[in-house]
Amino acid sequence: MARARLRELGIVIGDLPPGPNNAITDVADVWVGHTTVIQDEPRVARTGVTVVVPRAGEMFTDPCFAAYHSFNGNGEMTGIHWIAESGMLGTPIALTNTHQVGIVRDALVEYECRRHPAREWLLPVVAETYDGFLNDINAFHLTKEHVFAALAAAGPGPLSEGCVGGGTGMICHAFKGGIGTASRVAETKSGPYTVGVLVQANYGERRDLRVNGIPVGRALPHERVPVPWQQRPKDGSIIILLATDAPLLPVQCRRLAQRAAVGLGRVGGMGHNGSGDIFLAFATGNHLSGGDAPVPLRMLPNHTIDPLFRAAVEAVEEAILNAMIAAETMTGQQGRTAYALPLDQLQELMAT
Amino acid sequence: MARARLRELGIVIGDLPPGPNNAITDVADVWVGHTTVIQDEPRVARTGVTVVVPRAGEMFTDPCFAAYHSFNGNGEMTGIHWIAESGMLGTPIALTNTHQVGIVRDALVEYECRRHPAREWLLPVVAETYDGFLNDINAFHLTKEHVFAALAAAGPGPLSEGCVGGGTGMICHAFKGGIGTASRVAETKSGPYTVGVLVQANYGERRDLRVNGIPVGRALPHERVPVPWQQRPKDGSIIILLATDAPLLPVQCRRLAQRAAVGLGRVGGMGHNGSGDIFLAFATGNHLSGGDAPVPLRMLPNHTIDPLFRAAVEAVEEAILNAMIAAETMTGQQGRTAYALPLDQLQELMAT
Amino acid sequence: MARARLRELGIVIGDLPPGPNNAITDVADVWVGHTTVIQDEPRVARTGVTVVVPRAGEMFTDPCFAAYHSFNGNGEMTGIHWIAESGMLGTPIALTNTHQVGIVRDALVEYECRRHPAREWLLPVVAETYDGFLNDINAFHLTKEHVFAALAAAGPGPLSEGCVGGGTGMICHAFKGGIGTASRVAETKSGPYTVGVLVQANYGERRDLRVNGIPVGRALPHERVPVPWQQRPKDGSIIILLATDAPLLPVQCRRLAQRAAVGLGRVGGMGHNGSGDIFLAFATGNHLSGGDAPVPLRMLPNHTIDPLFRAAVEAVEEAILNAMIAAETMTGQQGRTAYALPLDQLQELMAT
Amino acid sequence: MARARLRELGIVIGDLPPGPNNAITDVADVWVGHTTVIQDEPRVARTGVTVVVPRAGEMFTDPCFAAYHSFNGNGEMTGIHWIAESGMLGTPIALTNTHQVGIVRDALVEYECRRHPAREWLLPVVAETYDGFLNDINAFHLTKEHVFAALAAAGPGPLSEGCVGGGTGMICHAFKGGIGTASRVAETKSGPYTVGVLVQANYGERRDLRVNGIPVGRALPHERVPVPWQQRPKDGSIIILLATDAPLLPVQCRRLAQRAAVGLGRVGGMGHNGSGDIFLAFATGNHLSGGDAPVPLRMLPNHTIDPLFRAAVEAVEEAILNAMIAAETMTGQQGRTAYALPLDQLQELMAT
Repeated sequence: MARARLRELGIVIGDLPPGPNNAITDVADVWVGHTTVIQDEPRVARTGVTVVVPRAGEMFTDPCFAAYHSFNGNGEMTGIHWIAESGMLGTPIALTNTHQVGIVRDALVEYECRRHPAREWLLPVVAETYDGFLNDINAFHLTKEHVFAALAAAGPGPLSEGCVGGGTGMICHAFKGGIGTASRVAETKSGPYTVGVLVQANYGERRDLRVNGIPVGRALPHERVPVPWQQRPKDGSIIILLATDAPLLPVQCRRLAQRAAVGLGRVGGMGHNGSGDIFLAFATGNHLSGGDAPVPLRMLPNHTIDPLFRAAVEAVEEAILNAMIAAETMTGQQGRTAYALPLDQLQELMAT
Repeated sequence: MARARLRELGIVIGDLPPGPNNAITDVADVWVGHTTVIQDEPRVARTGVTVVVPRAGEMFTDPCFAAYHSFNGNGEMTGIHWIAESGMLGTPIALTNTHQVGIVRDALVEYECRRHPAREWLLPVVAETYDGFLNDINAFHLTKEHVFAALAAAGPGPLSEGCVGGGTGMICHAFKGGIGTASRVAETKSGPYTVGVLVQANYGERRDLRVNGIPVGRALPHERVPVPWQQRPKDGSIIILLATDAPLLPVQCRRLAQRAAVGLGRVGGMGHNGSGDIFLAFATGNHLSGGDAPVPLRMLPNHTIDPLFRAAVEAVEEAILNAMIAAETMTGQQGRTAYALPLDQLQELMAT
Repeated sequence: MARARLRELGIVIGDLPPGPNNAITDVADVWVGHTTVIQDEPRVARTGVTVVVPRAGEMFTDPCFAAYHSFNGNGEMTGIHWIAESGMLGTPIALTNTHQVGIVRDALVEYECRRHPAREWLLPVVAETYDGFLNDINAFHLTKEHVFAALAAAGPGPLSEGCVGGGTGMICHAFKGGIGTASRVAETKSGPYTVGVLVQANYGERRDLRVNGIPVGRALPHERVPVPWQQRPKDGSIIILLATDAPLLPVQCRRLAQRAAVGLGRVGGMGHNGSGDIFLAFATGNHLSGGDAPVPLRMLPNHTIDPLFRAAVEAVEEAILNAMIAAETMTGQQGRTAYALPLDQLQELMAT
Repeated sequence: MARARLRELGIVIGDLPPGPNNAITDVADVWVGHTTVIQDEPRVARTGVTVVVPRAGEMFTDPCFAAYHSFNGNGEMTGIHWIAESGMLGTPIALTNTHQVGIVRDALVEYECRRHPAREWLLPVVAETYDGFLNDINAFHLTKEHVFAALAAAGPGPLSEGCVGGGTGMICHAFKGGIGTASRVAETKSGPYTVGVLVQANYGERRDLRVNGIPVGRALPHERVPVPWQQRPKDGSIIILLATDAPLLPVQCRRLAQRAAVGLGRVGGMGHNGSGDIFLAFATGNHLSGGDAPVPLRMLPNHTIDPLFRAAVEAVEEAILNAMIAAETMTGQQGRTAYALPLDQLQELMAT
């Protein structure tokens, strides 16, 4: 069976409708770009970088509100001190492998300093998960040019999932993982807002995988689909990005980010010790730049926010599953193989 | 059908075995006591207070490590500044209704000052959920004596669940809620530890209730079991207490507390805006008192902690369900009724 | 010499001008009220309650943005979970003694429930410092009526300092302490804003007291002015409230609150282990209530915020000193005496 | 007058004695290394990297407890999610310029992966302040080799201050700034412990500089010593590292880190909006590695911790001043000059 998206398999998560692309790009002006690096010589590369670019690339001068939540902080997400201090996100977000967060981070600095030489400082947001099972991570494959290429490729509309960009070499619930996305349209008392999610999914044990509440993972043991590691630690990480066009303040972004733990938990995550489960939410419904005068804003009233929370939970659950549904079996360094979640067996299990 | 506990219905959550009581009291020297206040005259009372007493009552002089996590802070839990600062819990924990946190808090001060008059200051931990649907909350029914009675009643072993103590008037997923408890024995590389959970459950929408992944709530709509409110806000709260005998440091207690969000999310909670979902974890595996010399401690290695996280997730899920399984239909002020989760229908739904 | 305010002694802290009252009430519609309880029979009372009432009493229905910072959390401030979650303050703030936080908290609930019976829940903010050296604290002198009286007495304009309200029995740097206040007008690029501060000062060692950088404390040893305790712990606490009419968001309120540590540090505080040094900042420049539509707000641009930080630092330093300058020598239980900072000797030391 | 250290000028901060080097290296096995990059061609470099290496280089396998505090988060410090989660520091700490945090971070990864190829993931701690006034920062001068050189140079004993390492191009209170260090020996009830501090000081306005409470800055206006910028933003940052050999837990490390705000405030810092004032404290008094069994630890009792707080405050104040005392006048890109604090004038001002 060809790879697909979850809904194409007839599996529907939750109550709310997705946006037109069922992707983080359903939030207006949120762009995504990937650079995927797959090569076998001279050293094996199964890695890459994914950029999420709010404001159609103008986030350096047109920041948005944001907040993060660390569900289990065994990972890296740079740039968060200023987000915590100001509630503002002023750079693209990049996702990559654990050992090259630095070069990706400096590349974002350089990219912007070339565009705006007068720009004095930048605190870019780069997060990671570990792809060193399939990828020869200590070969340090990525260069600044890979980052520039991902930025150049960033755009709106449907986006690739699975073994692409930062998700190239990732493994999730002992199946092949990677990048996944989903969205929901939440009807509130002041109208509809979109919540879009993008994940880089690289966490979890086989036995804990649930699809819409069904314990799929334990129905697919090693004997049916080999687990990539038998004698190795099973830890991993997941980075979850949440975007919305609702006019949320930073405190409200943090609330949204925290809900990702519920979506993650429903799929089977529980924040293993070795997992870097860090969530970032940003809200584009306000523009924060201007002169010296107080900036006019709007705030979604808290008593109307629940539909956004529901949207976040549902979209996170579906985005993780989309990552696994899209990802194809991959063999990497030392002949190691991570097998894709078998779609036919999944559909069988869901039908019973 | 008589009320029961979840396991008596043949429903098993997760993989790990419970302790002998399947209760928070399975953690040695953790005691629980309830005072339940139910009366119709002169004003309707459906309220109470529940105390959780570590160290068999000697926690004032023998504190333990602790940490809290606020999943949605629309609620009160006093005493947390010192817990955040020092990582230590030095008083019993009391659960009650929203409008009487204060008197319960001062009662804990008075109780200890009577026992140890030289004691200079106390920062007790009191948390709440709102029982004002069934209980005439502005009658302020509780007195300090109710708190003293709960402390006097506190003890080890099996404990009452459902409409008792602080949980008396609570409502959960639009069924009758209240106090619930569960425990798990987690086998780690350094031996078994117990994680016990006690909840005061008063949150959630009917449609979101899931039992072991099965969407029970939406199979039991208003037409089958009346929802207590049709025109009113559905918000509520849940306080989750987690105890363990593992030698956890305060940072590790916080990790344990955060996992409660996963257990809650699996039952159907997502932290509604109006919900005070605050979690407190304490670990009795170290004794912190002594003289002026450095205190000898032990720390569970982080790389061995995952079984405790799993235990926390499972016990939270089961404790919430135990609260609903134990609670009986209750009619309170103004003739309002909260219906119990019908056990026969639950069993039917779980069997299909 | 009669008691005075710091500026009346010719001592000027910092660069910025104070508001007309040099008080927290310089922020429009911030009211303050005290109830002072001083009696010798049947048990010695040297205590009270001080209320700070934003919005001229209408803060229940017209909340403002707020945030807190715990510099050393050995103390209590209730109501902070919702402030952390929502960034909103929706009740008056009360300051009192350590053992009666609860009754004061419940009194605020009852006060509002009487005014607006339909009001469903309240999470009032009550903070404390320990007056048990002079006050027979385990006599639990305060009643709800004392709180209602402070609320009834609350008003704008100049306010009493020193041994009044919650500050009645307090001790600061081993001199008599209590309530103090100050304000600053900060000129920003978008016009002037006022920062007002009120402290309940009950912390610190004699030797650490500095007035405008001059080490006054060590020039006034026990031999010149007796230290109230010689064999007892010297810990205490300070609650610092900061108000501003600037249109700050919650994240910006937190920034303001954090600056209080600098003002406190300049006087000689360093957050002793036993000290509850908890700071709360609120900003009245936005109105947050309304219907279901997004609420229009204004946000002070962060790049223009520095004058407010300076104002906060200066006002905190002066408010603490005003508390000590205003407070008179007091004898309490067991004949214990806390001596006032001698103003003549202070002026001599500052002149050299 | 030749450059000096503060104490050599007869200026003594606080009460506690310094350690033998009056440096962070007074904490046993804490090493420091610098790489200083000064060149004029092809583009002007005034930058570098400083590494602080606990455990004499073996911190990768022998981590210590740690915690951070962000006083004003307009800056970067990587690696803090795992520190927040686990309370552990497992890599050296590097300080550098704002635009090259990334390459320094990846260099620390590469350094360790070369030494221990089986090492799976690393989350190094790299912090920065902005040297783009004197340094042509967008030339990205630093390479991984500069980091390796600093690590190779790291050692115990006295260390260079002022215009060295990461501090090369820094400016503080509008005088030349840079790297500074100091230490204190704190006598506690269980014996003496050392607190060592190292700062990279690059913050503050001239008028706010105070030396031991004396307002030195406003006595040295632009007319006496030129301010490097007249028309430019004056913001900057300070990174403060605190080390101790006391057996502190992570929660206690955070307490120590927070005290740095007091030392900073006494010199004249108040956390300007544009300043990244981030503090990291680590405690080497426990060894955390081992097998699977609970790790034996010791914890300094909180009631004996105050001398460490005092030590932190004093050492931070002195370390900042040492940075300024040691730094010499430097001319960088575009002929810009940052003038050293004139020692003769300083001594004159202190003598009056």
